[in-house]
Amino acid sequence: MKVDGVAWRSIAEDGPQAVRIVDQTRLPFAFATLRLEGCDEVAHAIGSMQVRGAPLIGVAAAYGLALAMRRDGGDAALAAAHAALLATRPTAVNLRWALGRLRALLQPLPPAERAEAAWREAGRIAEEDVAINRALGGHGAELIAAANARTGRPVQVLTHCNAGWIATVDYGTALSAVYQAHDAGVPVHVWVDETRPRNQGLLTAWELAAHGVPHTLIADNAGGHLMQRGAVDLVLVGADRVSRGGDVCNKIGTYLKALAAFDNGVPFYAAVPSPTIDWELRDALREIPIEERAADEVRVITGRDGDGRPAQVALAGAGTPVANPAFDVTPARLITGIVTERGVAQPAELVRLFAPPLVAAGGAGR
Amino acid sequence: MKVDGVAWRSIAEDGPQAVRIVDQTRLPFAFATLRLEGCDEVAHAIGSMQVRGAPLIGVAAAYGLALAMRRDGGDAALAAAHAALLATRPTAVNLRWALGRLRALLQPLPPAERAEAAWREAGRIAEEDVAINRALGGHGAELIAAANARTGRPVQVLTHCNAGWIATVDYGTALSAVYQAHDAGVPVHVWVDETRPRNQGLLTAWELAAHGVPHTLIADNAGGHLMQRGAVDLVLVGADRVSRGGDVCNKIGTYLKALAAFDNGVPFYAAVPSPTIDWELRDALREIPIEERAADEVRVITGRDGDGRPAQVALAGAGTPVANPAFDVTPARLITGIVTERGVAQPAELVRLFAPPLVAAGGAGR
Repeated sequence: MKVDGVAWRSIAEDGPQAVRIVDQTRLPFAFATLRLEGCDEVAHAIGSMQVRGAPLIGVAAAYGLALAMRRDGGDAALAAAHAALLATRPTAVNLRWALGRLRALLQPLPPAERAEAAWREAGRIAEEDVAINRALGGHGAELIAAANARTGRPVQVLTHCNAGWIATVDYGTALSAVYQAHDAGVPVHVWVDETRPRNQGLLTAWELAAHGVPHTLIADNAGGHLMQRGAVDLVLVGADRVSRGGDVCNKIGTYLKALAAFDNGVPFYAAVPSPTIDWELRDALREIPIEERAADEVRVITGRDGDGRPAQVALAGAGTPVANPAFDVTPARLITGIVTERGVAQPAELVRLFAPPLVAAGGAGR
Repeated sequence: MKVDGVAWRSIAEDGPQAVRIVDQTRLPFAFATLRLEGCDEVAHAIGSMQVRGAPLIGVAAAYGLALAMRRDGGDAALAAAHAALLATRPTAVNLRWALGRLRALLQPLPPAERAEAAWREAGRIAEEDVAINRALGGHGAELIAAANARTGRPVQVLTHCNAGWIATVDYGTALSAVYQAHDAGVPVHVWVDETRPRNQGLLTAWELAAHGVPHTLIADNAGGHLMQRGAVDLVLVGADRVSRGGDVCNKIGTYLKALAAFDNGVPFYAAVPSPTIDWELRDALREIPIEERAADEVRVITGRDGDGRPAQVALAGAGTPVANPAFDVTPARLITGIVTERGVAQPAELVRLFAPPLVAAGGAGR
């Protein structure tokens, strides 16, 4: 999508030996890119959330593995790079999916051929991500257009976290639908959850402002009240991992918004590219590891000081005990539909839509 | 309650011409008091949330009216002070209740006698607040003790906002129960919602730390996840206004926690001193005015810089549109019980517990 009129992707090849990413820890205050030349740099970028968003970290990890192969295409290096990248974030399944796909491709190849094959495959995963999210957003945009046709008013969408173009290679997932509706002339306004503790809502507000989509930033606490007052037509979020049955693991706090939507008869949709679906996953609440992140993400906050420079302030002292689970699970019973590249499905219909192969442990592509 | 071993109240008479308050805008970073000598100063302290919490702002407003009477006991001055104080915050009913009680007392009196009568009555309201919240907390502590007796484990309480001693004259409402349980030797741990945008959870964490109660600060988004995982035994919050039928208006985001509690079978209690009950209120969702506060409460955040000095950073630019509703309404159907000074009642039983007089517009004590 565009920033100041220039088209960007969140990750792009920068010659044959490096990738260039948008450094998301500096947004929304500064738009800056970083050149990553090795697997370690990519792993650090994922762990520190310089790149974030389930689809994007899958693509970034694939490039990280390819960069590792450029230095050493041997079996040990492949195993080490796979393990290091997989350990960066435990919750999103795209990371495991992309790394599994590369490993399955590379293992049968002679070490000398792996670097080039990995690089090409990472590029394919990136292009597929763009195509999937463009298609998915088209289906989501139809939901927004239908709401507008029904009410005759601008459609009020509430979103949580950032499921925008910077969480993917381009377009985004939930926001792909918003962008495509907006670009098609459907009047749409987005309520943007701040999304504590990391405030990814500020990334969403930045994206929407850059693209010219009307929006309003709110505290995470406000969404239920807005739904009670009829101010939300639909909730649209992304996902980090989705079970066979359509349980949605997404940024912490998503479940609370799904409860409020259900209680107020507001449709709740998750926008889910198929690599985010974990077909092996049956009981999302029990089986998904929920990342516990650092206490200082809650205690310390980054903004801009009076001179516009990045600055941090402590909200609580180092002695204040903190818990910081990064994700929660929204049960399928609260979800109106899953928006995928193949159309919108009820949670229970996902399996029919994609007809995944029967699960075998360690199967190809995992 | 105690701070560094010294007993404090959040508001106290400072000679016959002034009150002294704890300046809550400086907590938790600094514990400082302010001397307020006139009605205008009290009104400013309420509007700016130097004093906050439904019970406390009722008491503060009563003292404000008394201070106005010290300067001019005439009818016009009474009406003007009443109006100015009433306009400071629209949602909490205690403000209206305390001001109405004073006005009903003062109007029949000769102007020369009003100042002294008002001062004595404000003192009575303050003492009643202490007595009510001590009694209420005793009933709440029984709930916590019962949970401990049932499970044999430390009781996990989740609270939202600050319903502690600094939100009242002393003891608090929800936290009065926690303090009394803790002081009686019942093991209790409190999950403290940060409570964006004004982060009153940091006040709660400060109070609990000062009193030695185990607690953990969490983002507002985390509570649903914790309840799904069985990590919460009961939710206990305060209230700003409660309807006849037991609908609870409280800090924005309370409704989301009530939904999560209901969905997970976790008991949800509101601790409500009877002056917080608006017996005239039938349909809380329609009738309670929800205060919309300044956008900069969401855009700008105050903490401490690296040298420990108070500092502000901007999270979003002035161009980012913001909505900032300060309260929401939790319907009675989601509430297990209302903890009052007369015991714990189901929402529908409130009327029987207090047998309020039939509502007549402008009746005594309103």
